[in-house]
Amino acid sequence: MTVVVTGYEPFGELDTNPTAHVAAELDGETVAGESVVGAVLPVAFDSVTDRLESLLAEHDPTVFVSTGVARGSAAVRIERVGVNVADAVTTPDNVGADPRNERLADGPAAYFSTLPVESVVTDLLDEGIPACLSNTAGTHLCNDALYTVRHAVERDDRETRSGFVHLPFSPSLAAAAARENEATRGGSVPPSMALTTQTRAVRLAIETTLGSM
Amino acid sequence: MTVVVTGYEPFGELDTNPTAHVAAELDGETVAGESVVGAVLPVAFDSVTDRLESLLAEHDPTVFVSTGVARGSAAVRIERVGVNVADAVTTPDNVGADPRNERLADGPAAYFSTLPVESVVTDLLDEGIPACLSNTAGTHLCNDALYTVRHAVERDDRETRSGFVHLPFSPSLAAAAARENEATRGGSVPPSMALTTQTRAVRLAIETTLGSM
Amino acid sequence: MTVVVTGYEPFGELDTNPTAHVAAELDGETVAGESVVGAVLPVAFDSVTDRLESLLAEHDPTVFVSTGVARGSAAVRIERVGVNVADAVTTPDNVGADPRNERLADGPAAYFSTLPVESVVTDLLDEGIPACLSNTAGTHLCNDALYTVRHAVERDDRETRSGFVHLPFSPSLAAAAARENEATRGGSVPPSMALTTQTRAVRLAIETTLGSM
Amino acid sequence: MTVVVTGYEPFGELDTNPTAHVAAELDGETVAGESVVGAVLPVAFDSVTDRLESLLAEHDPTVFVSTGVARGSAAVRIERVGVNVADAVTTPDNVGADPRNERLADGPAAYFSTLPVESVVTDLLDEGIPACLSNTAGTHLCNDALYTVRHAVERDDRETRSGFVHLPFSPSLAAAAARENEATRGGSVPPSMALTTQTRAVRLAIETTLGSM
Repeated sequence: MTVVVTGYEPFGELDTNPTAHVAAELDGETVAGESVVGAVLPVAFDSVTDRLESLLAEHDPTVFVSTGVARGSAAVRIERVGVNVADAVTTPDNVGADPRNERLADGPAAYFSTLPVESVVTDLLDEGIPACLSNTAGTHLCNDALYTVRHAVERDDRETRSGFVHLPFSPSLAAAAARENEATRGGSVPPSMALTTQTRAVRLAIETTLGSM
Repeated sequence: MTVVVTGYEPFGELDTNPTAHVAAELDGETVAGESVVGAVLPVAFDSVTDRLESLLAEHDPTVFVSTGVARGSAAVRIERVGVNVADAVTTPDNVGADPRNERLADGPAAYFSTLPVESVVTDLLDEGIPACLSNTAGTHLCNDALYTVRHAVERDDRETRSGFVHLPFSPSLAAAAARENEATRGGSVPPSMALTTQTRAVRLAIETTLGSM
Repeated sequence: MTVVVTGYEPFGELDTNPTAHVAAELDGETVAGESVVGAVLPVAFDSVTDRLESLLAEHDPTVFVSTGVARGSAAVRIERVGVNVADAVTTPDNVGADPRNERLADGPAAYFSTLPVESVVTDLLDEGIPACLSNTAGTHLCNDALYTVRHAVERDDRETRSGFVHLPFSPSLAAAAARENEATRGGSVPPSMALTTQTRAVRLAIETTLGSM
Repeated sequence: MTVVVTGYEPFGELDTNPTAHVAAELDGETVAGESVVGAVLPVAFDSVTDRLESLLAEHDPTVFVSTGVARGSAAVRIERVGVNVADAVTTPDNVGADPRNERLADGPAAYFSTLPVESVVTDLLDEGIPACLSNTAGTHLCNDALYTVRHAVERDDRETRSGFVHLPFSPSLAAAAARENEATRGGSVPPSMALTTQTRAVRLAIETTLGSM
């Protein structure tokens, strides 16, 4: 039995993406008796659907947790719902696509995550990891991964539980942003979280989910 | 030769204070050849002045770095200036004192920190630690420590370089606040920083200061 | 032909609710040739559904715009989507109900607003009114109004276009919150918007919607 | 007897500056029996000192209130203290000067405003205008005006009461920023305040100050 964890490549102004690190860290681990496959997704609206559907088809996972980075977030955000919208807002994807208020699929307006979202937040907080339930994953590729996996699971009648976890900047990304913002002269700094804590959070989310099944 | 580092006890709704942890961690360490004395201050406008002046008199330190916790701060904030104001705003101190727009001393409106504030921020960012220069330490006991030490150093004509470092919540404090805010149901979470990173930041601030003298 | 505009009564710590004012102001007006019925809803999960369905049944409106106040919002927020969730987070309703991660109806996970949300934001900005598209209306009674009206419209196969507009605090609510936060001593102040601007924004949202049909 | 009110010209990305509007509106008014001279200052570190000192010398005002715009501020901020620092942080002035951690004058670290800052905030809140006391005016030209006038008043032994009021964006500036941020697609919007309220706030600040003398 397999668990799939995805992260994203760097994009926009970011030199690194903590979620690629988390996916790589967890790849090959065994969590609660299941082996984890970590994969790094392209930041590209056009190709991410194929990539997600291939991961589903290849591994038929028990649990599928996608992750993405959220500038400005101070906590691990467990997303409740993915919406049928693709909009790049201010940041076209890595191949220049800039969808505006488009639909992701011929599907319903939204899908709820099938992770036990409240229990995951409770368990993270009990471990001292800052976390919250979130009611919007935005409309960029993070929301795309949440919606697209849920849509494929429903369509193909799989048992896979799936959902999305937004992760904060790593401290080094926040330090880089601080330099951009002239923090040495009083400019602002975005919130961040240690990478080891981020990885631990995703591992715990998997454990809580498997424990609830 | 000695370096003094102070933190504060818990106060208000906080069960622990990361700055007490940082002061305890650094107590007894040798940093850049100087021995560090870590001390935890009372959260009390009435007694903190005596405590700070005793530390100065007892150790005649080369460097005196005070630290305090700042709810809502995502970065290590190196304070530029302390003002001659005591105001508890919304949080009376631990013995119930609630000063309102009072003066701390018969002294000037403000003192600048004599730490090399810009260089400290630069060095922290170079180490990947989120940090910024800050233009206000507020008017509570954090500002008090900054102003009071500088005032005593000037009055007594000491060589001591002194300043103030605001530190973020620890992850466990942020998780506790998240529970208060019903983050499991969508409530908010304050930013935080790993305690080891906080301790490393203060150690680096001392090193940069000693290296600049 | 009729347009319905709803606001909410005061709730929680708020002595007044700007959205009740807006609904009362617009009640009886003619906008783009249609007469507006303004109604003030109870802040009560149990009774709001009946009230919304009665307004739909009684007026069979062309357009149904619900409004609610959003603490912390600096702009008129045109909501894109309502989700099938009732959760009071930190503020039980006015009769003490405190639902936690409940479903609003036996319906889909979400409905999109059928207002022309992008065009409304564009037209508001062209009039110099701060506005944005929003991807979450939360899980309290604001989201409830958005979801419940859309659900009833779909179920009953009505032509009504409906959606939700989050409005900021009025200046007087922000001033009251500032007093609570000890802003006289340095405490914080939430953003706000003049009531006349709020009313103008909702009138414009109706005009843009009618103009798009 | 005369009151001087200053605002600033547009700068950086701003097409207009609400504080220039406020200064122009109040120019020629009589407030509490004194005639108001409104002046618009250049956004230039090099020339603003001469301009401020000329206004002091020409009018020998009873009260000198400088104003400037603060992106991100939701309230009228009555500044408590100006510091002896010039730093343009991320925005060089209108003639390209970009001072970094420089001193404004051969003077003390800071001056307190001599407006009755707490009473002004109290009176604004009593009128329903969102306002707060602020402990930092930053290090750009706003702080410069506060420090420079106070320094000249002290040096020349004038009776003039002086201070600084930070004003929010106007709604039209916030709408322009919203367009920049793609708010139509979900981007963010800064807080704002109606220009008439801004003007009223500065008039009230003058009245409270004159009433306290």
